[in-house]
Amino acid sequence: MKPKTSVNHIKSITKRPLKVKGFRAAGVSVGIKTTRTKDLALIVSDLPARVAGVFTTNRVKASSIDVDIVRTKTGRSKGVIINSGNANACTGKAGIRATDKTLKAIERELGLKSGEMLVSSTGVIGVPLDVLKIERGIPKLVKALSAEGFTSAAEAIMTTDASMKTISGKVQIGDEVITITAIAKGAGMIRPDMATMLAYFMTDANISAAALRKALKEAVGGSFNRITVDGGMSTNDTALIFANGAAGGELIKPASLAYKKFSQLLNELSLRLAHMIVRDGEGATKFVELTVKGAASATKAERAARALAESILVKTALFGGDPNWGRIIAELGSIDVSVNPEKTDIVIGGVKVFARGVDTGKELAAARVMKKRDVELMVDMKSGKGTYTLWTTDLSYGYVKLNSQYRT
Amino acid sequence: MKPKTSVNHIKSITKRPLKVKGFRAAGVSVGIKTTRTKDLALIVSDLPARVAGVFTTNRVKASSIDVDIVRTKTGRSKGVIINSGNANACTGKAGIRATDKTLKAIERELGLKSGEMLVSSTGVIGVPLDVLKIERGIPKLVKALSAEGFTSAAEAIMTTDASMKTISGKVQIGDEVITITAIAKGAGMIRPDMATMLAYFMTDANISAAALRKALKEAVGGSFNRITVDGGMSTNDTALIFANGAAGGELIKPASLAYKKFSQLLNELSLRLAHMIVRDGEGATKFVELTVKGAASATKAERAARALAESILVKTALFGGDPNWGRIIAELGSIDVSVNPEKTDIVIGGVKVFARGVDTGKELAAARVMKKRDVELMVDMKSGKGTYTLWTTDLSYGYVKLNSQYRT
Repeated sequence: MKPKTSVNHIKSITKRPLKVKGFRAAGVSVGIKTTRTKDLALIVSDLPARVAGVFTTNRVKASSIDVDIVRTKTGRSKGVIINSGNANACTGKAGIRATDKTLKAIERELGLKSGEMLVSSTGVIGVPLDVLKIERGIPKLVKALSAEGFTSAAEAIMTTDASMKTISGKVQIGDEVITITAIAKGAGMIRPDMATMLAYFMTDANISAAALRKALKEAVGGSFNRITVDGGMSTNDTALIFANGAAGGELIKPASLAYKKFSQLLNELSLRLAHMIVRDGEGATKFVELTVKGAASATKAERAARALAESILVKTALFGGDPNWGRIIAELGSIDVSVNPEKTDIVIGGVKVFARGVDTGKELAAARVMKKRDVELMVDMKSGKGTYTLWTTDLSYGYVKLNSQYRT
Repeated sequence: MKPKTSVNHIKSITKRPLKVKGFRAAGVSVGIKTTRTKDLALIVSDLPARVAGVFTTNRVKASSIDVDIVRTKTGRSKGVIINSGNANACTGKAGIRATDKTLKAIERELGLKSGEMLVSSTGVIGVPLDVLKIERGIPKLVKALSAEGFTSAAEAIMTTDASMKTISGKVQIGDEVITITAIAKGAGMIRPDMATMLAYFMTDANISAAALRKALKEAVGGSFNRITVDGGMSTNDTALIFANGAAGGELIKPASLAYKKFSQLLNELSLRLAHMIVRDGEGATKFVELTVKGAASATKAERAARALAESILVKTALFGGDPNWGRIIAELGSIDVSVNPEKTDIVIGGVKVFARGVDTGKELAAARVMKKRDVELMVDMKSGKGTYTLWTTDLSYGYVKLNSQYRT
């Protein structure tokens, strides 16, 4: 889904993580992962920065999430330290102490005041985090900081990800060109033993905390909240945006044209990162854009789209390249979305396979389209104006393999 | 779950379908299935019988369901004709005509009045049903009727089932011994191309229509509604009970001791058939009894149990024999069941793997227990008295294989 604004203000977008004025980043290995790959990342703004965050709504939260929720309320932060390999969730009081020690150590090393840094963790849950490894690794981590460090940081936050996820974009606002660079990780919406979706945005835009909060909320709502791999929700999901104003220019406030431009770029970058996460979905062989339209309400459209995207039967049919509209219409009938099959159309890759309650006989044409990696699935319930689009994957042997292996 | 009544009135239970006074049944092949195996079944009571039915709540219903809902409201029926190989769902007006013609043909052949018979269909959906095959096959079907015909009928209603599902039981009520025999089919809760859970109970008990309705509803609520293979719900799910009173004795009314005895047997037979369906679940390698207790309400216990049983992540962990409590606690945290992880225990096969928010270090012992085919999974939320038990399967390579193959 492209941004709905008619004018595109975005100057450029690239997968390469561009430098952002006043920001430095790093990623190093400190031995949390048994693979000896990078597992500790740091992003800092050398200038005071405004911050906004969106966090998991799971009632079972890692202690890092509890701390970040409190700290982001001030609207100000200097950066974030992230470890991978251990989510430090369901680890009791020792886990809370580990979070505390991590923050104290990094703030001391950077010469910051208490409360200026944030923290994220991702990886196995329920296993005590050896915080000594982090404390010992912090001097090395801080030494590695550089303006080009986003790639290292992106690498250091990966867990089951097959590929690194970075993106940058520029937009002209008034006389200034502002940059947003983002890194993310995630391959299943949840895989609590090696879990979590994390995304960090760094920008030199001069934007108010209120505008930043609004823009992040909108961007996450249109991107990360519209993807699903397996229907799970992590204990550690986090999206953070830091804005240090280094690009100068007037302060961007909500509802201004400048805000619209900023928001457009942020939405687009979020969407691209979200799509990268779906494409990297555990065992995924398909990238599926699923749209429900004509629903009696927006809520019913979303409910229908989520039910279809999370249906084991629909996901296995997608894996098999089977244009099985029967599973789609039966799933819709079983949930509270007021479907009337006699009015409903189902279109797969542009081929209408089901029209107003009956088969159209175009199954073979649809099966051909479904052989592609990218599949568009559209259901038109013709009962109203509710529309919802999300992106998902199929359910393959590969997914079952990844998620059934004993964690040793 | 054993019946909760303290006294067990049941005389005997056997998987062999016993004869029931006044009932005859048959199953023949009429060429609906391409495999030339049996695909048309008939059950008739030679005496007038009372009837009760429970049907799918899917908004997308086969036309046979619409007819049966109306006809069972009278509380009287002489029997049911069932075809497998074609669900006759989403087949438009031609489908409605096919249902009508089937009923007319069987009622004429049996010399019955219009409205006395019921009809079920199961199999592929969206494909026109060649009703001529049924009309032509009906004389052969009626000729094949016999008091020993339940096995043939059970065979003729199978689709993806790997095994036939029959059960019988006897209970003494007053001076009479009454018999209930039942046949069922089902291997996925839904597989709309070869779909549906069907169950038929035949009894010679002399029981009022109101009592019959109440007993069937209770039995289905405690059995078929508590199993889930893949979270889907079919367009054709049906449970019917016929009672012809041939055993004699006083009329069984609700709330009597006789009713309790009858109901106890019906509950037990339903539960055993439901368990057979789970054990025969598509690709299932595990039979899982999942109990949530200590929930703040019965509704929250049921919601939690269903979410766990339908979680792709929990199901793949079961397949892998992985005592992954992280997936369980994270799933509970993501839904509206008011879980407090600090109070919650998770027990797998008697081994407590998670206690009050932390790992117990008993993972290896739990993994050993999970190697068995039958696994008990229990979550105690310690927040109230809500309890719910259901039965489910794991999610295996075999399931993905069965459900991803193109339907040709």
